Amino acid sequence: MKLTPAQLAAFESDGYLFFPSLFSSPEIEVLLDEVPRLYAQQRPENVREKGSDAVRTNFAAHLYSEPFARLARHPRMVEPVMDLFGEEVYMHQFKINGKMAFDGDVWQWHQDFGTWKADDLMPEPRAMNVAIFLDDVNEFNGPLMFIPGSHKLGAIDASHDTSTTSYPLWTIDKATISKLVERGGIVAPKGPRGSMILFHSCLVHASTSNLSPWNRVSVYLSLCAVSNHIRRFKRPAYIAHRDFTPIHVLPDDCLLKPYPVELPWKDGTPEEAMRTEIAA
Amino acid sequence: MKLTPAQLAAFESDGYLFFPSLFSSPEIEVLLDEVPRLYAQQRPENVREKGSDAVRTNFAAHLYSEPFARLARHPRMVEPVMDLFGEEVYMHQFKINGKMAFDGDVWQWHQDFGTWKADDLMPEPRAMNVAIFLDDVNEFNGPLMFIPGSHKLGAIDASHDTSTTSYPLWTIDKATISKLVERGGIVAPKGPRGSMILFHSCLVHASTSNLSPWNRVSVYLSLCAVSNHIRRFKRPAYIAHRDFTPIHVLPDDCLLKPYPVELPWKDGTPEEAMRTEIAA
Repeated sequence: MKLTPAQLAAFESDGYLFFPSLFSSPEIEVLLDEVPRLYAQQRPENVREKGSDAVRTNFAAHLYSEPFARLARHPRMVEPVMDLFGEEVYMHQFKINGKMAFDGDVWQWHQDFGTWKADDLMPEPRAMNVAIFLDDVNEFNGPLMFIPGSHKLGAIDASHDTSTTSYPLWTIDKATISKLVERGGIVAPKGPRGSMILFHSCLVHASTSNLSPWNRVSVYLSLCAVSNHIRRFKRPAYIAHRDFTPIHVLPDDCLLKPYPVELPWKDGTPEEAMRTEIAA
Repeated sequence: MKLTPAQLAAFESDGYLFFPSLFSSPEIEVLLDEVPRLYAQQRPENVREKGSDAVRTNFAAHLYSEPFARLARHPRMVEPVMDLFGEEVYMHQFKINGKMAFDGDVWQWHQDFGTWKADDLMPEPRAMNVAIFLDDVNEFNGPLMFIPGSHKLGAIDASHDTSTTSYPLWTIDKATISKLVERGGIVAPKGPRGSMILFHSCLVHASTSNLSPWNRVSVYLSLCAVSNHIRRFKRPAYIAHRDFTPIHVLPDDCLLKPYPVELPWKDGTPEEAMRTEIAA
């Protein structure tokens, strides 16, 4: 999958690209069928919503779930990112965000690179976010909201919000958001399950709570240019990976055929992955 | 303003009617200009969001603010409701809901009649909600969501949620909402300021948080058929009014011309209005 010049220009200007129905329903079912089993596990990779058992985000499933391990090597997802960076990429972060029916809480306005820079000492915003919808996304189940063009500002000052939700986040202040929205507006790509969004790691985004009876499970993969790997291990390795090996893609039908993949964390999170450097 | 047979049929079937741009911009400005002054007041009628100074809802402004006192007597709002009930109406509740930029919190799924029945002993759902947009409403600033047809079930079992937000509410459980949405779906009428919605007091509704930089201030008026007045004064009179005098409408230009209105609570909330009956 190669990006066209028009797509490259749109990405440059808006900071994201939307690919409706890029994956087929049978491909998505392989992934979605696996989610309840993953969310039911009691392991540190499952972060639950405030005051609820609903999973807010699950980390690193590609290291202990076969279908997600294959998704992590999918050419439709990896190749356009390599194309954009002109370099091989490794998996910096791998999340399955729940945004579950009724319980899914907000994600405040933020840039992902803000966190990667502040916490992980990632040198440059040469890492790309990929969102893949496992459920249909509509206006009622808390779609991802972007401020088009906001990626052009690079890393914006942010402060560490540890109280609003169950997951700490470097968030951007109201005055800055107001200014950015005045210039770029807000968009929320919506579409059927199997749709994919590529978005710049400096693109400012957020999502509201999901009061609807429809889950909005999405996979968020963050692919980093290998030369741009993180320099500090302040967060556990299941959140910010420390294995900078380039991804080798599988064939295009890898979600439907059982190509062998390694599952190094199948029997639990290694102790080493929990160890973190104390900040200086 | 008379409702057409098509409008009456739509109301019967869906439980609401939407009138885009029913009020003009100059009419709305008269109201909107007054809101900051009202929200700045330290009086019991202002309920603020959890952990924020932003006003979630302001009660009874029609008793101490001239523009809102005139709105409370507006024929474009009162006449269709009298028409539907075939009877004179009084003001049961009058709110200016903030849903302020960034801070506006959710309203959980509920029916208004659920609260009026449980708390105020209102006999029948012969009271109508009217929403008037003082700001443009879009998909990003927490629009009102309805489950069409849900009003046909009458009062649905509810439980008193005193913890989710700063305002206690009789809310409906997830299983019931799922069933109702399966049948009726969800709609969220959006449109420019000055738009009006009439909705049945048994229509199940909710709204998400407002993460956008756009306020979504709306007036919610609840007009009750005079014969259907409440039987218990469990809540303060600024929330559930005890004056059952029929509304006498002003001329259609009443927002633009200074027709005289009484403002009985201009100098503060009377002590009597704070007094409540203790439940048996």
